[in-house]
Amino acid sequence: MREEPRPTMQQLSLKRREDRRLRAGHLWIFSNEVDVARTPLTGFAPGEPATVLDAGGRPLGTAYVNPASLICARLISHAPDTPLDAALLRDRLTHALTLRERLFDAPWYRLCHGEGDFLPGLVVDRYDDVLAVQLTTAGMDARRDDLLAVLDDLLHPSAVLLRNDIPARDLEGLPRLVETPLGTPPAVLSVPENGARFSVPFLEGQKTGWFYDQRANRAEAARYARGVDVLDAFCYAGGFGVAAAVAGAASVTFMDASSDALDCASANLAANAPQCPGEALHGDALTKLAELRDTGRRFGLVCIDPPAFIKRRKDAARGLTAYRRANSLALDLLTDDGVLVSCSCSHHLDAAVLRHIITQAAARRRLHGQVLYLGGQGPDHPIHTAMPETAYLKCVAARFRRPQ
Amino acid sequence: MREEPRPTMQQLSLKRREDRRLRAGHLWIFSNEVDVARTPLTGFAPGEPATVLDAGGRPLGTAYVNPASLICARLISHAPDTPLDAALLRDRLTHALTLRERLFDAPWYRLCHGEGDFLPGLVVDRYDDVLAVQLTTAGMDARRDDLLAVLDDLLHPSAVLLRNDIPARDLEGLPRLVETPLGTPPAVLSVPENGARFSVPFLEGQKTGWFYDQRANRAEAARYARGVDVLDAFCYAGGFGVAAAVAGAASVTFMDASSDALDCASANLAANAPQCPGEALHGDALTKLAELRDTGRRFGLVCIDPPAFIKRRKDAARGLTAYRRANSLALDLLTDDGVLVSCSCSHHLDAAVLRHIITQAAARRRLHGQVLYLGGQGPDHPIHTAMPETAYLKCVAARFRRPQ
Repeated sequence: MREEPRPTMQQLSLKRREDRRLRAGHLWIFSNEVDVARTPLTGFAPGEPATVLDAGGRPLGTAYVNPASLICARLISHAPDTPLDAALLRDRLTHALTLRERLFDAPWYRLCHGEGDFLPGLVVDRYDDVLAVQLTTAGMDARRDDLLAVLDDLLHPSAVLLRNDIPARDLEGLPRLVETPLGTPPAVLSVPENGARFSVPFLEGQKTGWFYDQRANRAEAARYARGVDVLDAFCYAGGFGVAAAVAGAASVTFMDASSDALDCASANLAANAPQCPGEALHGDALTKLAELRDTGRRFGLVCIDPPAFIKRRKDAARGLTAYRRANSLALDLLTDDGVLVSCSCSHHLDAAVLRHIITQAAARRRLHGQVLYLGGQGPDHPIHTAMPETAYLKCVAARFRRPQ
Repeated sequence: MREEPRPTMQQLSLKRREDRRLRAGHLWIFSNEVDVARTPLTGFAPGEPATVLDAGGRPLGTAYVNPASLICARLISHAPDTPLDAALLRDRLTHALTLRERLFDAPWYRLCHGEGDFLPGLVVDRYDDVLAVQLTTAGMDARRDDLLAVLDDLLHPSAVLLRNDIPARDLEGLPRLVETPLGTPPAVLSVPENGARFSVPFLEGQKTGWFYDQRANRAEAARYARGVDVLDAFCYAGGFGVAAAVAGAASVTFMDASSDALDCASANLAANAPQCPGEALHGDALTKLAELRDTGRRFGLVCIDPPAFIKRRKDAARGLTAYRRANSLALDLLTDDGVLVSCSCSHHLDAAVLRHIITQAAARRRLHGQVLYLGGQGPDHPIHTAMPETAYLKCVAARFRRPQ
């Protein structure tokens, strides 16, 4: 398609051997991998495209560059001189859309998951005819107008919310802000999932609205809910607890540090399962879990879906302690024959480590444990096959009893 | 419950430090871990119970012993002097049944999954009122009559098939045989799954009838089937292909080394999705996959569910080569935008290794890949939290395209 090279594009040369990860399919270039003697990073404007060369001068593809960032370039094509123009954006977004239309009967899903959809720096969540868009890099931010035009042409949204108020933009030297480039996004979304409907704040809410990544895990957790008391800790809008109530839970107890979240969860419970008794416990979840344990309360199903306790690798030790504490408390709160559904969205916590934390805590309590389910992020959050960094969500469902 | 020790039970003493795995919850004792100077294994009859002691004489639980086996004892309780009697069998099977009744609306599932259900050596598959039972160890074989009585009392089956014709019994010094201790099991089962119904040979078929462990993975694969040509390699009774046809596949091609399996798969396709064109390719799957590739055939969904290529650790190198070959050929058979569903039931192949095999093959072909789903064995095949050996099934769904 693009047989004529565009000679105006700058070049970015890598040091010897630093091409290997890219040749295996990875998309990131770290600043210490660039041969800055040959191609100084200071020669690039934030977001500027470049053809990437290995130490021998062979082209590896096209990236956009940000000299201010540790990840100083992200590959957007394995062909040289192929900028992230409207045609490439359209190609990638069409490919992303095809997958979701294969998967889902209705237009409620994450449409684009950054690197996992070969569009580094771009997240798009779709709520029927409303879109939430997040631009996390200077390279993608620079394509904003083309992107909005392509989305408009592909999906004809009635409203678009640009949810560019995340810390990741600081690293790219981008301002944090929320904008509405198209239409009037609703203050509250009403999201259908697993036979329920969730009202969640959109303009003032967490993230880009709804956490679609847990859809399958919430459905799995609900299989263990019938007839038992359910605890939904770190509940946000009540995704786990409400699904459990719809599946026949005897009661649902929500727990969150945000009273707005608890109000939202309680309202969603009342709207979807008015017959199910609900309770809202406000406060730091680790503290509240310990208090509940000490009062002797027990639950047939305990779901814990904490925020990322390990955001960066250097948080690992403290984060591990928090995961150990949360999972230990959750085990203490189980009835005999209870099921724990334990999630982690920290990329730096390996799935095997989460399982090990649970196994250790069970062994210390002399519990018999059965792992019933090992889940991850839903298929609308694809993992790039060559980028382990794009896998982040883990979900373990396990059942425990005191042995005879 | 059992406060008075039964002084007649023999004791099995472990060497120093060999108690650690058991204290972490594991159930196996290997023959080289036994202090044979103190408690010679030759002093035990196959299947005889024993109280297990650590090197300091502290009790670790009760096991049944088989001096002829490398795994010379399996813990059946963490309490001393607690033989595998009818009461314990009933307790454990009731616990297993409770889980399945929580999970499934109809009585079609694996009821007992050996160590995963704290009953080492016992597999029970339930087909409504028909049971398939497999006794894989001398210790469990010795409890046969009690076991059948407990199953009869709990489930009132109309027929029981004892499917004791597996190689694992050789290692225990047990004969291979098939028996029908109760009723007249049907020659053919009709198993409902994912909205289809599968006829499979029961008396003469593979394993204990149906492979329930793939239920969720087959449902997931079917999500990618609508409107595309589907290849179901190593198809057995057509579990993946028929689910795909029911979900709207354009056509299904079955491949198996057994012509009986192909006949079975084709009949299941005709019964469940008569509108869907089917094809049966007979022969060694690796050879047939290469032939198909060379003729230029391509599929929108390729499912490969091979037999365990790595049965024992020493088969690892050869088995890895076979997995690499099968996955590489499967990638070559995909259309652009095609989805590969790749399974492995080899415990010795780690999930991460299977993913790496697929990643490598994709990188070599310069394909963009997206992992959409990472599945395992279904929840009626529980993984013992402290026994990695009880995790065996992996399923990866990934989508590939040639990059622009």
